[in-house]
Amino acid sequence: MSDERHLIETKVSSEVVYRGHFLEVRKDQIALPDGGQAGREYIIHPGAVVIVPILDDGRLVLERQYRYPLQQVLLEFPAGKLDPGESRLTAARRELAEETGYRAREWACAGILHNAAAYSDEFIEIWFARGLEQGERQLDHGELIDLCLMQEEELDRLASAGALTDAKTLIGLLWLQKWRAGRWPLDWQTLDAAQG
Amino acid sequence: MSDERHLIETKVSSEVVYRGHFLEVRKDQIALPDGGQAGREYIIHPGAVVIVPILDDGRLVLERQYRYPLQQVLLEFPAGKLDPGESRLTAARRELAEETGYRAREWACAGILHNAAAYSDEFIEIWFARGLEQGERQLDHGELIDLCLMQEEELDRLASAGALTDAKTLIGLLWLQKWRAGRWPLDWQTLDAAQG
Repeated sequence: MSDERHLIETKVSSEVVYRGHFLEVRKDQIALPDGGQAGREYIIHPGAVVIVPILDDGRLVLERQYRYPLQQVLLEFPAGKLDPGESRLTAARRELAEETGYRAREWACAGILHNAAAYSDEFIEIWFARGLEQGERQLDHGELIDLCLMQEEELDRLASAGALTDAKTLIGLLWLQKWRAGRWPLDWQTLDAAQG
Repeated sequence: MSDERHLIETKVSSEVVYRGHFLEVRKDQIALPDGGQAGREYIIHPGAVVIVPILDDGRLVLERQYRYPLQQVLLEFPAGKLDPGESRLTAARRELAEETGYRAREWACAGILHNAAAYSDEFIEIWFARGLEQGERQLDHGELIDLCLMQEEELDRLASAGALTDAKTLIGLLWLQKWRAGRWPLDWQTLDAAQG
């Protein structure tokens, strides 16, 4: 990696300007590397996970959910925020079980993505899950989710046609196709599915 | 598309709870399709564009920029928010010129992505640009950006190794590889580069 010192911004002061039920907004005064100052407003986020769940027959488990800010239903891989103090793998197992009912025997981490780097500290860690067993779902209050089993080829076709727009889901598809093509390796670990 | 009425949430009331220099946060009370009520907090965003700029020799134009919320430098395709009333293609041409100095003769739209559907109405429209000619950059105050010319294979290697985490850039790479493989078509239009 090249020398990055000439790009780095330094905090001068920081203020919480809004704290809601879900969103916290901070406004920092920063020193620019060229000596000037500027303001930076951004969301504090606990981080999240997205899961690419693969059934034994190769189909994928997806969700249809109404996304109120967009006023539309999106097709997405299961995902959710980390609870306080929770590990990312624990969050991935919890979210998969709560939203879909599936527990997985094998897990592999494919890395992270940053979805709104200009105004949020959110990361989304990408997990693959296979060896799935179906159980009961436990949706949160106000959480309405349809499950959707789909082949990779169908998801690819939807993406090409503009009908798959969720960023973490497009990146899950990218990883899935690279892994299946033998290009981007995954390091699988076997867990006790009963704990999932 | 299946019937979606059982997923749709309806606005009961809406309030701006924070309006900063850059971020506006709304909090809406909503009616759930099952009859209950819930709150939804979200960011209002003008929308954005990301550009995949392809040089005549096949290399891509990327940027290295410090992303203050993440406290790290990210490798990204050029991108930026729409100005009020601005068309998406005009924004793509403006951002490419301002941030990189390049003007493009040919443009193609690859669709949109939603990067934070749970808490932002942001969309990012993905544009491809080729027939590039170099000119002067015009960075905003407080905007420090390194340019970086890179082959697709190098970008692919960085993504596989976890060193490319920006969502819009990963999705740009996905589209680029699909297009070059003849899988996802692009509809190119030729513009007058002097206007770019």
